[in-house]
Amino acid sequence: MEVGFIGLGKMGLAMAGNLLKAGQSVTVWNRTRARAEKLQPQGARVATSPGEAARIGIVLTMLADDRAVESVALGENGILKSLPPGGTHVSMSTISVTLSSRLAAAHGAAGQHYVAAPVFGRPEAAAARKLFIVAAGAEPDIARCQPLFDAMAQKLYIAGADPAAANLIKVLGNFLIASTIESFGEALALARKSGVAPEKFLEILTGTLFTSPLHQNYGSIIAREAYDPAGFAASLGLKDVRLALAAADSAGVPMPVASLVRDRFLSAIGHGLGEKDWSVIARLAAEDAGL
Amino acid sequence: MEVGFIGLGKMGLAMAGNLLKAGQSVTVWNRTRARAEKLQPQGARVATSPGEAARIGIVLTMLADDRAVESVALGENGILKSLPPGGTHVSMSTISVTLSSRLAAAHGAAGQHYVAAPVFGRPEAAAARKLFIVAAGAEPDIARCQPLFDAMAQKLYIAGADPAAANLIKVLGNFLIASTIESFGEALALARKSGVAPEKFLEILTGTLFTSPLHQNYGSIIAREAYDPAGFAASLGLKDVRLALAAADSAGVPMPVASLVRDRFLSAIGHGLGEKDWSVIARLAAEDAGL
Amino acid sequence: MEVGFIGLGKMGLAMAGNLLKAGQSVTVWNRTRARAEKLQPQGARVATSPGEAARIGIVLTMLADDRAVESVALGENGILKSLPPGGTHVSMSTISVTLSSRLAAAHGAAGQHYVAAPVFGRPEAAAARKLFIVAAGAEPDIARCQPLFDAMAQKLYIAGADPAAANLIKVLGNFLIASTIESFGEALALARKSGVAPEKFLEILTGTLFTSPLHQNYGSIIAREAYDPAGFAASLGLKDVRLALAAADSAGVPMPVASLVRDRFLSAIGHGLGEKDWSVIARLAAEDAGL
Amino acid sequence: MEVGFIGLGKMGLAMAGNLLKAGQSVTVWNRTRARAEKLQPQGARVATSPGEAARIGIVLTMLADDRAVESVALGENGILKSLPPGGTHVSMSTISVTLSSRLAAAHGAAGQHYVAAPVFGRPEAAAARKLFIVAAGAEPDIARCQPLFDAMAQKLYIAGADPAAANLIKVLGNFLIASTIESFGEALALARKSGVAPEKFLEILTGTLFTSPLHQNYGSIIAREAYDPAGFAASLGLKDVRLALAAADSAGVPMPVASLVRDRFLSAIGHGLGEKDWSVIARLAAEDAGL
Repeated sequence: MEVGFIGLGKMGLAMAGNLLKAGQSVTVWNRTRARAEKLQPQGARVATSPGEAARIGIVLTMLADDRAVESVALGENGILKSLPPGGTHVSMSTISVTLSSRLAAAHGAAGQHYVAAPVFGRPEAAAARKLFIVAAGAEPDIARCQPLFDAMAQKLYIAGADPAAANLIKVLGNFLIASTIESFGEALALARKSGVAPEKFLEILTGTLFTSPLHQNYGSIIAREAYDPAGFAASLGLKDVRLALAAADSAGVPMPVASLVRDRFLSAIGHGLGEKDWSVIARLAAEDAGL
Repeated sequence: MEVGFIGLGKMGLAMAGNLLKAGQSVTVWNRTRARAEKLQPQGARVATSPGEAARIGIVLTMLADDRAVESVALGENGILKSLPPGGTHVSMSTISVTLSSRLAAAHGAAGQHYVAAPVFGRPEAAAARKLFIVAAGAEPDIARCQPLFDAMAQKLYIAGADPAAANLIKVLGNFLIASTIESFGEALALARKSGVAPEKFLEILTGTLFTSPLHQNYGSIIAREAYDPAGFAASLGLKDVRLALAAADSAGVPMPVASLVRDRFLSAIGHGLGEKDWSVIARLAAEDAGL
Repeated sequence: MEVGFIGLGKMGLAMAGNLLKAGQSVTVWNRTRARAEKLQPQGARVATSPGEAARIGIVLTMLADDRAVESVALGENGILKSLPPGGTHVSMSTISVTLSSRLAAAHGAAGQHYVAAPVFGRPEAAAARKLFIVAAGAEPDIARCQPLFDAMAQKLYIAGADPAAANLIKVLGNFLIASTIESFGEALALARKSGVAPEKFLEILTGTLFTSPLHQNYGSIIAREAYDPAGFAASLGLKDVRLALAAADSAGVPMPVASLVRDRFLSAIGHGLGEKDWSVIARLAAEDAGL
Repeated sequence: MEVGFIGLGKMGLAMAGNLLKAGQSVTVWNRTRARAEKLQPQGARVATSPGEAARIGIVLTMLADDRAVESVALGENGILKSLPPGGTHVSMSTISVTLSSRLAAAHGAAGQHYVAAPVFGRPEAAAARKLFIVAAGAEPDIARCQPLFDAMAQKLYIAGADPAAANLIKVLGNFLIASTIESFGEALALARKSGVAPEKFLEILTGTLFTSPLHQNYGSIIAREAYDPAGFAASLGLKDVRLALAAADSAGVPMPVASLVRDRFLSAIGHGLGEKDWSVIARLAAEDAGL
């Protein structure tokens, strides 16, 4: 298949690399051109605008936030204007439910297709083709992208026909991780202050109840206070919890734990910890306990 | 071995039954004698007081709360007065850190041994010998009880020499479950109100990030709103979160999520839901969202 | 003076009426024309568009929310296009800090003046000329409006040169009222459940510590559970706390009590109480207590 | 009248001094005898035990916390054992509802009278005879103490026949002050970070809505960040909010703002600020905002 790929951050670079490895023909674009050129040795062509990458007919976007996606999709020389009728925009970034719905409407009005396909997984998982993709949109549109998803992910989930559903599930997934970090941070603060070794505490909890890798990984980071370097920065954690709260607010759903976690991320940034791993909110819990 | 076993609620009955099956000689006592007599066909002897069960030299207690343990251990005809010097009290109930420390001190002063050995697992797990036991106390004391633990549990964790550590880990474990329920309740309220099917939401979340049985079980209860009959009642959830908060308060550790969850349990009781499964706090989140 | 006045809800009608009583020459506009015509007997002229009211040179707006102000100020036949160079838009609505800054910039770019002048006070206070006005903008612009403010308010506060400051103070004022309602709601729930008569409780608290009319008024509403009819609806309370939280979020300031109160308003709406007085959140506190 | 007075901290010393000035005959006792002797020049007699002060027939207690009151009232050489039948214990300390009820019962069983009479006001108010007293108990008992109350306070409120009611009102009053401090702290953090001068903000808010001296005093402390020296220490604030939460918990009343404020006080102590004025929690709000 011939595809365009826009956005070559840590995630996008690994994902586009896997498309190339799987034998897809990929035209890439990135705001900082140097990152796009990194993929030339693997056979990627480098476009000079998002629109040029979109002209191919299927274009994937993997960008930092709403603003970046809005600019690339709806701006000058953007996707909307260049994607041919019948073409498909596969939006893999973690963006707001609202923007995803706007994109769906705009592409639909232009006779184009739109699939939301955000992913779970860190850059290492992206590199190892271990991502999970949560896709939503019209079934034939998703089916057409199947070979692309197969090249990038270990598993595809289909969330339904409404693209916004995939985005909502993604931000709620990140909210659930963040709330887990917060709760473990509180529990470990009390354990440590009571003289229980964090490693012992975690060995027992992850051996009995919280057996998923997620709990082992974050539990271990918190127990070792290994917030640096960041796998996923607190500032990005804030972004995602904000997206969950924005969706909640417009749907009229109180989410008190989400508000509490959002405040922790704001405090982390207020204390100069915005670029630490998002699990650094556990350090705030420890400091509040006088540790 | 010859042992006493005090407290034959749903958990205790199953645990004492497994001791009998493993060939131990068990003398049981329960406030309501009829429950104790249920074990007679399996070979149990029925004591007429806690003290009579304690006179044997090793006595296990599995009771509802601090008050029950205090009465049985420290009251008239209680364990403290009847346990021979060198005897051991194995306290398996979910009780406060404070009471556990008091019991340790009282037994120590009387030349007796004390092991805290609370368990993770519901009555079904107790019946199936699938409990996890978290024991803390002097190593030889724990070692002496090993055959008893083997007869009741799938795995034993040793939390250290200070008995209170085991009780703290137990109540923090229950806090972590309760906070998971709360977060999933909030997330599912938003998913449902946004038109995402709860089953789909859970399939994705438990397939990607939250892969432990705990998440599948509680996720499924919340998605199906199957709060009745209770596996573990909201009123008991309140008890355990209170124990976590009491430990936190006396250690000077703020636990905002624990406070929030405690308030949910209080509200559940305020709305007449105290005897529903403790995951019923997810219903409160849904109702607040207008569902 | 000749002025335009846009927005004749409960507040605007009373305020424009006072301008007329003070001898000002007022041209009014309202989306529903019938409300504008109510002021004709007092000498008001009725404009056929916001722009017509703005052409006069000074125009005051008193509207429900950001959307209404945006439409009237920036839309077709709106203020921005019709206000003569050197003219002044006095924005008295409770709107977001962001919109106020946008309006300031837009009017500035058009050679027009902009004063933010939100008010504290309910419709009765507006009718009785007892409002407090918090104005911000260039000093000469505020000075020019002094006779208008005098005709509508008991006192004018000048918050500074940046119009957004006045809007921020206004939304924070409403946040502080809402948080007072919440705290009194919690306290009264405990008092009532403990058998202390709410009236007695309030008599003591408002006699000793909380001596301002605000506390007496809201305390009395909560004690009597007189949430109907609404002086200020829960749905409007939600709007204003959202404005405070939006300002906080973009400034990077955690406001946990504001989040908590926002969730109460969302819950109030979820329980069908959105059109009750905003102090109805105290009823939620009482219900959570089983009252 | 002849009375005993137990507890000569900052508050008690001023209050006992006022009793002496009013011509009462006062026998004082304090754990540290030196403080008791300070009142000898004014005519006080110094007792050698609480019991000796109680033997007089009316004894007032003004102590730091539950533990101190319990020891003085129920301990060796304590009030209960020495107060003559028909004598009265007037308990003016800020203590728990639970202890107050226990004291009422114990004195009742001994044929003695018990009046709970906690006070609102700081040491300066005590010195200036400007306290507010909230008394509860049997009417004749309160009436008998009227001359004593008159000598110490500007006003007496009678809360009812159940002594615990007075204690509940007192701790709820302090909760309401603490929650006001928290809300003002959050609002001022946002104002400051948005470039609004705190003094201007307060001038407007205390001029319009929050007109009571309470708001002016705490607002001013927060605006000037004048947390040292403490009028009332954060550690005492924690004690009182704990008392409110303990009453709430045993009555089954969720008080989310109280939990939030309790956590702020715990954090203040965790950050080494326990002996600053309790309004120092506003500093935590500011720091979380990066100020």
